[in-house]
Amino acid sequence: MTSGDFGLLSPVSASPSVAALTGDRAVMTAILDVEASWAAVLEEAGLVPAGSAAVVAEAAHVDFYDVASVAERAQGGGNPVIPLLGDLRARVRELDASGIGATKAVHTSLTSQDVLDSALMLLASRTVSELLLEAKRTTTALATLVEQHADTLCVGRSLTQHALPYTFGLKAAQWFQGVTAAASRVESLDLPVQFGGAGGTLASGTKLTAGSGSTPFTLADSLAARLGLAPAHAPWHTNRIAVTAFGDGLAALIDSFGKIAADLLFLSRPEVGELGEPLAAGRGVSSAMPQKQNPVLSVLIRSAALQAPGLAAQLHLAAATFNDERPDGAWHSEWPALRQLLALALGAAGHLRELTEGLRVFPDAMRRNLEISGPLLLSEGVSAAVAPLLGEDGKQKLQGVVDETLKAPAAEQRRIYTKLLREAVPADKLPDAELDALLDPASYLGEAAEISRRILAAYPDYAGTSKGATRG
Amino acid sequence: MTSGDFGLLSPVSASPSVAALTGDRAVMTAILDVEASWAAVLEEAGLVPAGSAAVVAEAAHVDFYDVASVAERAQGGGNPVIPLLGDLRARVRELDASGIGATKAVHTSLTSQDVLDSALMLLASRTVSELLLEAKRTTTALATLVEQHADTLCVGRSLTQHALPYTFGLKAAQWFQGVTAAASRVESLDLPVQFGGAGGTLASGTKLTAGSGSTPFTLADSLAARLGLAPAHAPWHTNRIAVTAFGDGLAALIDSFGKIAADLLFLSRPEVGELGEPLAAGRGVSSAMPQKQNPVLSVLIRSAALQAPGLAAQLHLAAATFNDERPDGAWHSEWPALRQLLALALGAAGHLRELTEGLRVFPDAMRRNLEISGPLLLSEGVSAAVAPLLGEDGKQKLQGVVDETLKAPAAEQRRIYTKLLREAVPADKLPDAELDALLDPASYLGEAAEISRRILAAYPDYAGTSKGATRG
Amino acid sequence: MTSGDFGLLSPVSASPSVAALTGDRAVMTAILDVEASWAAVLEEAGLVPAGSAAVVAEAAHVDFYDVASVAERAQGGGNPVIPLLGDLRARVRELDASGIGATKAVHTSLTSQDVLDSALMLLASRTVSELLLEAKRTTTALATLVEQHADTLCVGRSLTQHALPYTFGLKAAQWFQGVTAAASRVESLDLPVQFGGAGGTLASGTKLTAGSGSTPFTLADSLAARLGLAPAHAPWHTNRIAVTAFGDGLAALIDSFGKIAADLLFLSRPEVGELGEPLAAGRGVSSAMPQKQNPVLSVLIRSAALQAPGLAAQLHLAAATFNDERPDGAWHSEWPALRQLLALALGAAGHLRELTEGLRVFPDAMRRNLEISGPLLLSEGVSAAVAPLLGEDGKQKLQGVVDETLKAPAAEQRRIYTKLLREAVPADKLPDAELDALLDPASYLGEAAEISRRILAAYPDYAGTSKGATRG
Amino acid sequence: MTSGDFGLLSPVSASPSVAALTGDRAVMTAILDVEASWAAVLEEAGLVPAGSAAVVAEAAHVDFYDVASVAERAQGGGNPVIPLLGDLRARVRELDASGIGATKAVHTSLTSQDVLDSALMLLASRTVSELLLEAKRTTTALATLVEQHADTLCVGRSLTQHALPYTFGLKAAQWFQGVTAAASRVESLDLPVQFGGAGGTLASGTKLTAGSGSTPFTLADSLAARLGLAPAHAPWHTNRIAVTAFGDGLAALIDSFGKIAADLLFLSRPEVGELGEPLAAGRGVSSAMPQKQNPVLSVLIRSAALQAPGLAAQLHLAAATFNDERPDGAWHSEWPALRQLLALALGAAGHLRELTEGLRVFPDAMRRNLEISGPLLLSEGVSAAVAPLLGEDGKQKLQGVVDETLKAPAAEQRRIYTKLLREAVPADKLPDAELDALLDPASYLGEAAEISRRILAAYPDYAGTSKGATRG
Repeated sequence: MTSGDFGLLSPVSASPSVAALTGDRAVMTAILDVEASWAAVLEEAGLVPAGSAAVVAEAAHVDFYDVASVAERAQGGGNPVIPLLGDLRARVRELDASGIGATKAVHTSLTSQDVLDSALMLLASRTVSELLLEAKRTTTALATLVEQHADTLCVGRSLTQHALPYTFGLKAAQWFQGVTAAASRVESLDLPVQFGGAGGTLASGTKLTAGSGSTPFTLADSLAARLGLAPAHAPWHTNRIAVTAFGDGLAALIDSFGKIAADLLFLSRPEVGELGEPLAAGRGVSSAMPQKQNPVLSVLIRSAALQAPGLAAQLHLAAATFNDERPDGAWHSEWPALRQLLALALGAAGHLRELTEGLRVFPDAMRRNLEISGPLLLSEGVSAAVAPLLGEDGKQKLQGVVDETLKAPAAEQRRIYTKLLREAVPADKLPDAELDALLDPASYLGEAAEISRRILAAYPDYAGTSKGATRG
Repeated sequence: MTSGDFGLLSPVSASPSVAALTGDRAVMTAILDVEASWAAVLEEAGLVPAGSAAVVAEAAHVDFYDVASVAERAQGGGNPVIPLLGDLRARVRELDASGIGATKAVHTSLTSQDVLDSALMLLASRTVSELLLEAKRTTTALATLVEQHADTLCVGRSLTQHALPYTFGLKAAQWFQGVTAAASRVESLDLPVQFGGAGGTLASGTKLTAGSGSTPFTLADSLAARLGLAPAHAPWHTNRIAVTAFGDGLAALIDSFGKIAADLLFLSRPEVGELGEPLAAGRGVSSAMPQKQNPVLSVLIRSAALQAPGLAAQLHLAAATFNDERPDGAWHSEWPALRQLLALALGAAGHLRELTEGLRVFPDAMRRNLEISGPLLLSEGVSAAVAPLLGEDGKQKLQGVVDETLKAPAAEQRRIYTKLLREAVPADKLPDAELDALLDPASYLGEAAEISRRILAAYPDYAGTSKGATRG
Repeated sequence: MTSGDFGLLSPVSASPSVAALTGDRAVMTAILDVEASWAAVLEEAGLVPAGSAAVVAEAAHVDFYDVASVAERAQGGGNPVIPLLGDLRARVRELDASGIGATKAVHTSLTSQDVLDSALMLLASRTVSELLLEAKRTTTALATLVEQHADTLCVGRSLTQHALPYTFGLKAAQWFQGVTAAASRVESLDLPVQFGGAGGTLASGTKLTAGSGSTPFTLADSLAARLGLAPAHAPWHTNRIAVTAFGDGLAALIDSFGKIAADLLFLSRPEVGELGEPLAAGRGVSSAMPQKQNPVLSVLIRSAALQAPGLAAQLHLAAATFNDERPDGAWHSEWPALRQLLALALGAAGHLRELTEGLRVFPDAMRRNLEISGPLLLSEGVSAAVAPLLGEDGKQKLQGVVDETLKAPAAEQRRIYTKLLREAVPADKLPDAELDALLDPASYLGEAAEISRRILAAYPDYAGTSKGATRG
Repeated sequence: MTSGDFGLLSPVSASPSVAALTGDRAVMTAILDVEASWAAVLEEAGLVPAGSAAVVAEAAHVDFYDVASVAERAQGGGNPVIPLLGDLRARVRELDASGIGATKAVHTSLTSQDVLDSALMLLASRTVSELLLEAKRTTTALATLVEQHADTLCVGRSLTQHALPYTFGLKAAQWFQGVTAAASRVESLDLPVQFGGAGGTLASGTKLTAGSGSTPFTLADSLAARLGLAPAHAPWHTNRIAVTAFGDGLAALIDSFGKIAADLLFLSRPEVGELGEPLAAGRGVSSAMPQKQNPVLSVLIRSAALQAPGLAAQLHLAAATFNDERPDGAWHSEWPALRQLLALALGAAGHLRELTEGLRVFPDAMRRNLEISGPLLLSEGVSAAVAPLLGEDGKQKLQGVVDETLKAPAAEQRRIYTKLLREAVPADKLPDAELDALLDPASYLGEAAEISRRILAAYPDYAGTSKGATRG
């Protein structure tokens, strides 16, 4: 039986689809893809025997190699490229039946940092494609909620207390804005190829290309093109901003997921009941309590959100201590952090997508909770409208009304606040109808609708195609 | 005597110039500037009595207020805007001798988050201006080093060991690339104004502007323009990517400083002696050891580099747990982290500027250290050039030569390696002169010069004006 | 006007009492106390002129020195001891009117690390005394709540959902356990004196004591005794476990505060209403919303709880990279983190003490919330008691009853669950009275009372003196 | 082919022996062991059918279950116990051929938190045993170095510069002190069993034991005894100090490893050459540079040291946000951090053990480097001895001598310093022989030997058995 890890202790990312993109097998695939693409680049440039690239490509299939064995042997040189290269060269030699010398196309002029940096960028690039698909399905679902609930009244909360009337549409719009702003930032980041050779001088590549029509720079650009990575105008062995910016982007995306989960976890509590996670068989069960339906999607997303900041910091710490032309430990500390961020982001994105696509919304509960604070919730607006009618110390007078009202039991506050207000302002200055209007939460939503519209309009690609078409 | 902190335990940032931009007084100034600008915006829109803005502007001078007292009273409501507003309103009332009602222009329709978020962005903006000046003086100094030392041989190191011949010019170019990539990222970031009102619906602002030619959005844009901040298409109360992205940018910049410091701290060691910090009276002294000249600029920069990752993570953690329309602790945890990042960045930038402008370079020591590894340093290049001359197992044969050489004492290795190589390859295949050339480190620099040129060319603004002019 | 910081951006710790123990002035006082105590140690050992210690003691008063100026000059040598020593020596020289040579007693055989490490331990020790007082007032208040609410029914929640009947007494007991376990750990930690001399060999001290009745070790022990610090059997210049363990202890204490705040912030929400922060004039106000009463004590405590983990990690990072006999940046990164932990812990402890001493408890709301989940909350207990009566597949049958009940509206669930249960189990196996008892939450509290008793009994010192006397 | 992870990106811990103790299979084994031990506890107490425990024990073998499948299904309920229990119960039913009702012994009265918390403590306990063995082999090796190199002169360094004469024995002693202090702290920590039932009230267990001779507390104690865990006087569901203290302990241990690695990585550099890692075939190779011998053990240890602080912080963050009776994400974020700390600690411990047992020490290089700073290294001692002979301003005069000497090239400094000193002090006050003695580094080692002795004596268990016997 295997000794591998399958995410037993990380349920947020323990899905086969996450493993397929970020697991050790995916890493090894990416390493082999870099070597195979490099062989193709070299052959195209006429720098290795014709036919080499095909042999290397045939050999560079992950199924030929034993991940566990490579991982164990990676301890010797401190990185997995070294033992894998040994295995790959042996395989190429075997497959090179006609003896064209295909091993010459393996790793020539590269250093293991070139391969591993490029492979991790490739892993990142592949994972990001899937991640953005999940994110866009999420934002599309959110955009739908924005429009469906443009008029669904709820309460806005600050520092846990009721602040003002709000709409659930605006809440969804702010969630949408959070995810889209972060996702579009991830989308915009360059994931560059690495090619610098042993110390970052391209010395070996210079010798290799001498007298050919190529230069190390043209080879690097070809490699980038083959791998679908961004080109790099120079080696970046020691400047890790491509890594930290990517990690920061993933962290920001997970932050935006975490914000939604934090809200959900409160809003789906039994005492609140405004939202519910989608129901599914076996979801949210407990080992002890038969009646429980835990908001497990949100719990798992939050578990990722609590972890991402530390992982992004790990990448910065590596960058900040990246001594010499290749450092003495910092580089090694990057790898697991970067991979873990990818797995958390993709795992959490999947759960959030499922959550938002099936979110259950309970407008009645929203309304009921809004009523808890009664008319006092409108006291900011009342104060603005009424204070000028009361002279110099209007604000203080109205604060007095609020303070007096707060002394009463909650159930009495509506009556008392209205009464005290009525007493404080002569009816000729503020007719009853106007006072009633002031105390209607729907009258104090400000620009909730326009803010929502602006947010969706700012990111049409994330709001869903059909919607993109119908909105002006 | 005061109970304030002056950086006694943070020497990297304990300078008056850092305090002037990031200290509590600067924060309070920024808060007051937001309120004064807002008054001007309201007056310009005809929403408050004519003349109000001038009164508020007069009152909004930091010298009128007691930072320590405001800080202490901030505990009551949990933020410093609340007590400061009380003081400001009292002052405005005093100054409003003619009774125009200038207090109406104070904070109307704002919430304290609007003010504090905007004020911190303003603080950031002001600090960034100075930070970029320091960074550009640094990169200009580095660009000069790149050109002066294009041919200064040194050794490239990886995992602490000698890897390949290198140039100090390329090392400086990679430092330059690190700082410029990060600084230009910081330069490109939007620092947006915040305006959402109490819960982020702009409800109060909507009432205020009703019937006027303005909307809350036009007011927000005017405020942004007055403060020199970026406009915001919607309130971002709960989406903190503007904050995290800025923190990430500062961390990345400090990372790039830390990388240089890490190199300097090694290269200026007595056993190495390749570089020296600029000498200055009182710099680098010890309380016990009269002879010591500590590389204190680098030490302080490194102390900042070790702290920045955690601070950037703090901002992400806040963003990831930013519940409700204003959260229950996360927002508060942002403020000190953001300010600390600003102070560390600016403090470290000043030290790095001084370090790079006065860096002492010792090419002889570089050469001496390069010689330590002798000709083995060229074995990658030798292998590439010679292995094909030795048939199928050329690489193994040459590895044997290397292994044999490594058995000898360092002082003997040059002689032995040359002798063994000479024996391994017939002179007709590799004449003596060619062998000698292969063993000359200057022959194995690859694209060091071209990489350096590319790096400087990618960021002309950071390479110094005169240089910008002379480069193609 | 001063450029000092007064906690404007850190309201959790912006109180004069926190500043008095952890501010720059307190740090400088601690440094001066170390130097003065050292002078006394030297004089007592006959190693410096008689009378020196008195002169140094007179000179070593913080009011004589300018914190801001020392902080600024600390940049030169990288630590504040160096410039302060210059000022102190000058002062001693002035005061040494009779010319006994009192400067000989200043810093002789010490290095600045000895002074700063010892001073920070002294700062820690002084702060811990106050911190433990606050913690014990908190735990005493919690112990009272445990006893007052031993029978106050509420609901236990897991993963945000209702889990089981609970008592508020047990909740308070677990809070008590959290704080006491962490506080007693802090109480038990050694805060050792540092004395190693320049490189940690005690070379200078050895010369100094040669031929006297003292050794460097006896001097160190005397210094520890005078400062109230733990003795150290050897210098610990490079082994920072005393620092990290202390930081970990503070973080654990703040964790325990954060756990309480997290609960409070939920339980005092308007939808829940089970607890309320103590009311006080000016507490919890808003700059925009007149009606708001924010749980600001909890918010501030939580803001500290979100920051402490990163600060403790900063200390470990320093320890893990503490190279040489004194490191090149790691040591410097310890100082602000350690001080910030002290300030956050003390600030948060004060707020928590106020919170727990004045906590408002609303048993009716607890009961009301407990009812929300109705009898399903007891389904674990029902299942255990009833399943055996139903044969082999009893558990599945009862899960069916639960699932069926969950389909009904909440208001109907009590009736339906009871009815379905009644139908499922023949009355001869389970009489009505027994079924009713099974559905009474008070019947399913398990060992809530005994657990509470055990917890209080485990820490009598923390449960309040009078209580300690009356309990067994 | 499997999708598991085998440590491809974490070479420091990618060994089968680490995986055997900390991998997913080990976690699942621990979970099953908890369930099997619990069955035995219940049977022993007469609470389940006789013979149940044997059936459960037979079923609770990890080989019967599919780690990957359990991990994937863990997403449903958010933890791996739930799906594993389903599988375990099915297996027990199968094995219970005689129909004794053995499933009644599975998980009865437990909740999944009980099982997972206890299982992780069990995992920790098993890993710690091996970890301490590795640590003690390391400290034994270090103790030998302390004694072998008691008189091996080297230079003490602070802030990268030469500070004072030192011995390599003292350096090894400080390394020893670092590891032993941390390891003995880990050794002393309680790893408690968890038993609280669904919400931490032991309600189900109370019902179960009613009328029997047992109580939930006696069951918990029996479980602890069977598992070799510490008993717990109360459930600690929500108070995570057992977890954070353990994580802190591991981090402190890894810190102590990191400090050694930091020193090694410098001291084994070609320019320094004082130490060398043990040589081994395939160790420290490069994919590009045939001559390289990288200090890969130290690099890997350092990579762990850079990661541990963030992981320990992750545990504190969980503890600080552990809301309700079981939290909504914080608990889940603990698991991977705790396991990762265990894996890093054990992996790094193995590498450090190998490193210290085979460390190559080069006293000649130490002496050569000591000479670099020449006699100025002794200027602290010279100043202490000579200044009193020169009157009031003796110190300044000697600082002048140092400053003057520093102007000369390094090679000249010995001659010039001696000459200037000789000129400054009349020979009658300081005879030539005494001056020579002052300039001998061996004369200025202070208490290096005694400090080393004290350190070893403080931890006899860690200094090796035979040594333990002969000392004292």
